[in-house]
Amino acid sequence: MKLLFLNGPNLNLLGSREPDKYGTQTLEDIEKLIKSEAAKLNTEIEFYQSNIEGEIVTKIQKAKGIFDGAVINPAAYTHTSIAIRDAILAVQIPTVEIHLSNIHSREEFRKTSLIAPVCIGQISGFGSNSYILGLYAIYNYLSKKNI
Amino acid sequence: MKLLFLNGPNLNLLGSREPDKYGTQTLEDIEKLIKSEAAKLNTEIEFYQSNIEGEIVTKIQKAKGIFDGAVINPAAYTHTSIAIRDAILAVQIPTVEIHLSNIHSREEFRKTSLIAPVCIGQISGFGSNSYILGLYAIYNYLSKKNI
Amino acid sequence: MKLLFLNGPNLNLLGSREPDKYGTQTLEDIEKLIKSEAAKLNTEIEFYQSNIEGEIVTKIQKAKGIFDGAVINPAAYTHTSIAIRDAILAVQIPTVEIHLSNIHSREEFRKTSLIAPVCIGQISGFGSNSYILGLYAIYNYLSKKNI
Amino acid sequence: MKLLFLNGPNLNLLGSREPDKYGTQTLEDIEKLIKSEAAKLNTEIEFYQSNIEGEIVTKIQKAKGIFDGAVINPAAYTHTSIAIRDAILAVQIPTVEIHLSNIHSREEFRKTSLIAPVCIGQISGFGSNSYILGLYAIYNYLSKKNI
Amino acid sequence: MKLLFLNGPNLNLLGSREPDKYGTQTLEDIEKLIKSEAAKLNTEIEFYQSNIEGEIVTKIQKAKGIFDGAVINPAAYTHTSIAIRDAILAVQIPTVEIHLSNIHSREEFRKTSLIAPVCIGQISGFGSNSYILGLYAIYNYLSKKNI
Amino acid sequence: MKLLFLNGPNLNLLGSREPDKYGTQTLEDIEKLIKSEAAKLNTEIEFYQSNIEGEIVTKIQKAKGIFDGAVINPAAYTHTSIAIRDAILAVQIPTVEIHLSNIHSREEFRKTSLIAPVCIGQISGFGSNSYILGLYAIYNYLSKKNI
Amino acid sequence: MKLLFLNGPNLNLLGSREPDKYGTQTLEDIEKLIKSEAAKLNTEIEFYQSNIEGEIVTKIQKAKGIFDGAVINPAAYTHTSIAIRDAILAVQIPTVEIHLSNIHSREEFRKTSLIAPVCIGQISGFGSNSYILGLYAIYNYLSKKNI
Amino acid sequence: MKLLFLNGPNLNLLGSREPDKYGTQTLEDIEKLIKSEAAKLNTEIEFYQSNIEGEIVTKIQKAKGIFDGAVINPAAYTHTSIAIRDAILAVQIPTVEIHLSNIHSREEFRKTSLIAPVCIGQISGFGSNSYILGLYAIYNYLSKKNI
Amino acid sequence: MKLLFLNGPNLNLLGSREPDKYGTQTLEDIEKLIKSEAAKLNTEIEFYQSNIEGEIVTKIQKAKGIFDGAVINPAAYTHTSIAIRDAILAVQIPTVEIHLSNIHSREEFRKTSLIAPVCIGQISGFGSNSYILGLYAIYNYLSKKNI
Amino acid sequence: MKLLFLNGPNLNLLGSREPDKYGTQTLEDIEKLIKSEAAKLNTEIEFYQSNIEGEIVTKIQKAKGIFDGAVINPAAYTHTSIAIRDAILAVQIPTVEIHLSNIHSREEFRKTSLIAPVCIGQISGFGSNSYILGLYAIYNYLSKKNI
Amino acid sequence: MKLLFLNGPNLNLLGSREPDKYGTQTLEDIEKLIKSEAAKLNTEIEFYQSNIEGEIVTKIQKAKGIFDGAVINPAAYTHTSIAIRDAILAVQIPTVEIHLSNIHSREEFRKTSLIAPVCIGQISGFGSNSYILGLYAIYNYLSKKNI
Amino acid sequence: MKLLFLNGPNLNLLGSREPDKYGTQTLEDIEKLIKSEAAKLNTEIEFYQSNIEGEIVTKIQKAKGIFDGAVINPAAYTHTSIAIRDAILAVQIPTVEIHLSNIHSREEFRKTSLIAPVCIGQISGFGSNSYILGLYAIYNYLSKKNI
Repeated sequence: MKLLFLNGPNLNLLGSREPDKYGTQTLEDIEKLIKSEAAKLNTEIEFYQSNIEGEIVTKIQKAKGIFDGAVINPAAYTHTSIAIRDAILAVQIPTVEIHLSNIHSREEFRKTSLIAPVCIGQISGFGSNSYILGLYAIYNYLSKKNI
Repeated sequence: MKLLFLNGPNLNLLGSREPDKYGTQTLEDIEKLIKSEAAKLNTEIEFYQSNIEGEIVTKIQKAKGIFDGAVINPAAYTHTSIAIRDAILAVQIPTVEIHLSNIHSREEFRKTSLIAPVCIGQISGFGSNSYILGLYAIYNYLSKKNI
Repeated sequence: MKLLFLNGPNLNLLGSREPDKYGTQTLEDIEKLIKSEAAKLNTEIEFYQSNIEGEIVTKIQKAKGIFDGAVINPAAYTHTSIAIRDAILAVQIPTVEIHLSNIHSREEFRKTSLIAPVCIGQISGFGSNSYILGLYAIYNYLSKKNI
Repeated sequence: MKLLFLNGPNLNLLGSREPDKYGTQTLEDIEKLIKSEAAKLNTEIEFYQSNIEGEIVTKIQKAKGIFDGAVINPAAYTHTSIAIRDAILAVQIPTVEIHLSNIHSREEFRKTSLIAPVCIGQISGFGSNSYILGLYAIYNYLSKKNI
Repeated sequence: MKLLFLNGPNLNLLGSREPDKYGTQTLEDIEKLIKSEAAKLNTEIEFYQSNIEGEIVTKIQKAKGIFDGAVINPAAYTHTSIAIRDAILAVQIPTVEIHLSNIHSREEFRKTSLIAPVCIGQISGFGSNSYILGLYAIYNYLSKKNI
Repeated sequence: MKLLFLNGPNLNLLGSREPDKYGTQTLEDIEKLIKSEAAKLNTEIEFYQSNIEGEIVTKIQKAKGIFDGAVINPAAYTHTSIAIRDAILAVQIPTVEIHLSNIHSREEFRKTSLIAPVCIGQISGFGSNSYILGLYAIYNYLSKKNI
Repeated sequence: MKLLFLNGPNLNLLGSREPDKYGTQTLEDIEKLIKSEAAKLNTEIEFYQSNIEGEIVTKIQKAKGIFDGAVINPAAYTHTSIAIRDAILAVQIPTVEIHLSNIHSREEFRKTSLIAPVCIGQISGFGSNSYILGLYAIYNYLSKKNI
Repeated sequence: MKLLFLNGPNLNLLGSREPDKYGTQTLEDIEKLIKSEAAKLNTEIEFYQSNIEGEIVTKIQKAKGIFDGAVINPAAYTHTSIAIRDAILAVQIPTVEIHLSNIHSREEFRKTSLIAPVCIGQISGFGSNSYILGLYAIYNYLSKKNI
Repeated sequence: MKLLFLNGPNLNLLGSREPDKYGTQTLEDIEKLIKSEAAKLNTEIEFYQSNIEGEIVTKIQKAKGIFDGAVINPAAYTHTSIAIRDAILAVQIPTVEIHLSNIHSREEFRKTSLIAPVCIGQISGFGSNSYILGLYAIYNYLSKKNI
Repeated sequence: MKLLFLNGPNLNLLGSREPDKYGTQTLEDIEKLIKSEAAKLNTEIEFYQSNIEGEIVTKIQKAKGIFDGAVINPAAYTHTSIAIRDAILAVQIPTVEIHLSNIHSREEFRKTSLIAPVCIGQISGFGSNSYILGLYAIYNYLSKKNI
Repeated sequence: MKLLFLNGPNLNLLGSREPDKYGTQTLEDIEKLIKSEAAKLNTEIEFYQSNIEGEIVTKIQKAKGIFDGAVINPAAYTHTSIAIRDAILAVQIPTVEIHLSNIHSREEFRKTSLIAPVCIGQISGFGSNSYILGLYAIYNYLSKKNI
Repeated sequence: MKLLFLNGPNLNLLGSREPDKYGTQTLEDIEKLIKSEAAKLNTEIEFYQSNIEGEIVTKIQKAKGIFDGAVINPAAYTHTSIAIRDAILAVQIPTVEIHLSNIHSREEFRKTSLIAPVCIGQISGFGSNSYILGLYAIYNYLSKKNI
């Protein structure tokens, strides 16, 4: 199985950015954690981060035929990007949306996701654990079995 | 570790209720699945279901001092119950909100949760897997480690 | 044919409650009226009233396999209960929503019904006659013929 | 007793118009059905249909002193015509609003009626049976007795 | 000077329609009153009433080149007719909007006029006096002098 | 008969303030015009202007028992002053609201009046003529006759 | 005089629940306080608490003919229960709504009460003192005198 | 091929009505232009204009079985007529909505079309060219080929 | 203890203003009542009334260092004055908001208070008793004891 | 004449992306079609596609002085990009907005275009024919003649 | 050059009022600072503060012909005073709006200014420095040069 | 001191873009002006412009540890970019938001800034002077002194 982990704007700052809200792990730390966990599942992982909405769109487009599923933390683009939504709809790769913080307990404009309605589901609020849970969510969905 | 799984109205019908939306597993099937998974984590589980909002409130109140954490699928009360929200706030037991279906891709009134803002986080859309993911989410949160 | 008549909160006060708005007949008077009318149609009626949202949910769940159809006057829960809506959806028993008063000529918040969209139709404004009309509406729907 | 049945725009197409939503009976079929049912009640019926809002207004105005009550299916004008509302208010003839389809389970803009607040009540969702139920609703209202 | 008085739906019922809200004078009474008052000003008056929105539109179109100004009581169409608004814009005849009752103290939907923004001004609330005031408002506007 | 003409903030600038919108007459010019017109009707006029909301409130309070009616151009306070609304309600002196410009064709926030609902009616858009029309509106209302 | 004090969901947790917001007194402490204060007024008090909306509805229904007045702290149901509103309307027992915390300085959804409009008045923000003030408010209202 | 061109209220004024916004061509000029263009496509055209909403509804109803497609410029009724929407739905004739002016750059209430959602598509802003483009849009749609 | 009672616009009319809504006591009557009640508590009272928003602001500013607490009936300014809100915030004198009538059962715009969020709490609906209850509310708050 | 065809995010997937909604032609197919059609009009075409909002902005900026007109299918950026709107405003090149699908019959958020108000007009719903119609719309606009 | 600095309600409390939000400088301190800075620019300054909306209106009116420009900190009246907006419009003196705190990061109701739209621009968030920046903004605007 | 000046989309067109709204100076002119002014303050300036949202995000991220403060004119991204907001929050570099035109007197959607709430403050409406004022605003903020 081959899975793509997509990371939106500012996630490259993880570890230094508002650590009380987002934790002290860097995105590289999380990448290692996920890859090691995925290894147990015989699953290959690619990690991708971009601050540019259109580059994430392009990455999703190119995923077609290569990846079996995706996990996306769209960060700020969660609430503003119809383009990413359309890309996921277009390639029809099963995708899980994740968030480090609990978006339901923050500013009003962070409560609505334009992307979640075209995903299998959404996981929000568990810090780096959201990545782990996202990995299992997509893995189980694709292998049609429970954890 | 001792965890409480709370289930809101109509979840007792699982398996027969709109199976294309909610799957064919019964709540008892899920309970067994969770208990067997929890056993591996040396964790004790209690499953509770009620159709009555106030009984769920009472159950949460009584959980104080007995359970280390909770996983709640508030079902229809997700969107209407300030009383359940206040109960969780009152007992201060770490809680994870879960949903079988992806509430972000359904009717407009199902997109807003009154309860998620007082939980650690929300998991939505993975069928019975949402329960498994909820178990790991609360377990890892309480043991402060990754999966 | 077997039909369930469900009555929401405060309908047990009928006759004494704001008689200029709801008439002077008691719920028992209406029950007798309906049962006598139903007898002509060879139809068996059960009348049920509860002030507790969750009990009405439970009653609907248990109706499955026993009743051919239902008539519901959800009263105050018309506008707030997603749980009752979900119960009707879950059991898939054909249901007619009725109201004693004309909910369209009252407070703004009484104009929207959460339950009507999952019913066959809605009858509102005819006092105890709404029950009679509801009986014929569901009877004709089930027997697929006109009055 | 003399009753006026008013039919709004496009109801003259009944039978051919979206038969899965509105049934295969024509307006003439319904007219016959109602007249035969009314005969049993010693009640005279006039059926009227117009696509023009102002003609319906004029018809209501002329009903004064001639008809004891009215049943109106305002169709599309339900949601846009203050003029029909004002006409009913002006002539003070007791009126019942009916709809073939369940307007509460359709587009958002079909859920609000400008006309229902000045009627005795509203019946919605029972196909041609809505006409029969409307006949009994107004008949019973005027004869101040139950069915 | 030649002036057109336009009257919207249900105004032909004046005198009999809700007399406590609209007074006991008929539209003919008001027509006589206005014509006698206009005679003092050497001004010719035509009175027109229709229940049909499109006929009022046509009447406005035909007024071009014949009438110097207009007074319109659009009644129910005040709040729903963009067509009448467009007709006034198209013919560019100076127009005054009048209302018998005070539309600002009635239902919420009667507070907004689609037509007033394309008129010189609006007069509302003075019973049949609104017609007299409307006559003087347009007369003075056209003769560019005070009363 | 004794009438009070109340003028809200910035009306003391009339003549110099945005003359294309409000005309070149000063408030003193209008006062003379009104007094001369009122003399023909054997009516005494007092003109009052203040930029201070509370002073207008006080003036209205003191009008009780002295003035038979009032004409108010609340200017900017039209849209923000519940205090002036309450003062008119409190003294129960019949009052007509007037505006120089057509408030219905300006900014959105100028379309709603907090004061008109407690007045007999509203006249808007006729320049200084609005004052003359206001005089006749209140005079006729009080003498219960037409112009 | 006989008064009923009704307490909504989670109030049984008082003393332990978010003590910085709700104080350290338990509901029993408050009950004693009120009963001792009421004794001075020769007034009998019953205290009732339930987490179940429908049980509060039933309690209000049964109060008819037994209690002269009521004081209700509906807690979370303040903002969601039309059923409790309808029950108060139905039994017509004079009722005062109270709140421990100042609901006007909390979340947006806590600012609107569905119940206050059918009560004599509302007291909010004075901790356990709200109960004392509520006692005097209803007592004085019923004895038609000042404190 | 036979096509119906429907024109809503005030379009009969084209050429004289606000020529800077709508151009100087009359509706007859446009009719000639379209007929000559259609002749090249061996297509027969009927032009119809009415100021009355209900007459347009009737025209659409009668088009069934006679016309292969329609082009409609609903003018003011674009934003207010559910009746025209329902007529198009009822007859199921492929229809293209056109506008002379760019409705997206005008008043807020002109941005929403009730009719476009039941058409193939919408063309807006090209003056009389919108009619030509509308002709080709429906022609190509029906002949399932490109221009 | 020294307390300031602030009264907003039109409260000087109490007794004559809409007596069925506000009672027949004058503000002077209430002042005497409060002063006599306060005497029992060894508390000094100053009563202040103004129709001018800015004067109330100034009075609050000058209260600093002189008064221990305040009771304010902002009347119409409740819903429009950010300036009074800011003044209370600025001087940090504990303040209780009171209302004679139940603002929650009146016009929509009277339900929201800009001032209550910066007060200890709000008391609304008990006629002149609201002043007595306000006195005890602030007195008990300041003396940190129950009535 | 030289025309620029701009294509927003995901349009490079045409042909494979949701073919039932967007057709099976690729963007290259459409490009060929347009170029061959343009050749007949002696018009030169450049086709440009980007997934990156800012690149489209830059392309528009560079079009100044090179292209006589533009046709833009902004896709997802239709509803979110003020930057593209500002770019079109800045370069003042006449532009036509086109859409493959009928945006008026899809999700609510697709109905509003931020870009259409600064274009000549909008064409929506005709599949690849929208490109052809867009070509003729801009060509005729620039050559000030009809098709 | 002569400039007027206008200060709205509660600004006379500066230094003592919520010092963490508004700083410890008094308005007199700021006045001295501004006058000394203005001296360098050969500019005369008048400082004015009032808690009364209408007095600020009057001050603006009297500024005409005396002051070349104005700097206004409308404080609470920023969000509620159409009267001050109208006064600035009436006298047409170039005006700059300033705020000590960043109004865009406070309560929702502080984000909208009724006054900024009629000013040259707005400066918000720099403490007493907002006054200095306001001085340079208006000075440079009037002398049509850069700092 | 080292300061970063960030410029959003289309600002590279300054001088040619709508010169009556944005002036005739180019961005290079402004850069020179700012650098020369900054030289007097011993402050180093970097000017950066991009049309791509994500590139601006990246630039802000890289500013950390290099720049002491920033001045940002986000242009169109002011109203749509949560990503830029998050970047400023993440790097915690003090930032001032500036605008050439007065955003408060333009389209409704330009009145709200997603970015201002995370900046020190906002300066809007002074043409190129907004850059100078922004320079002094950040300079004084960082050096904690007045101009």
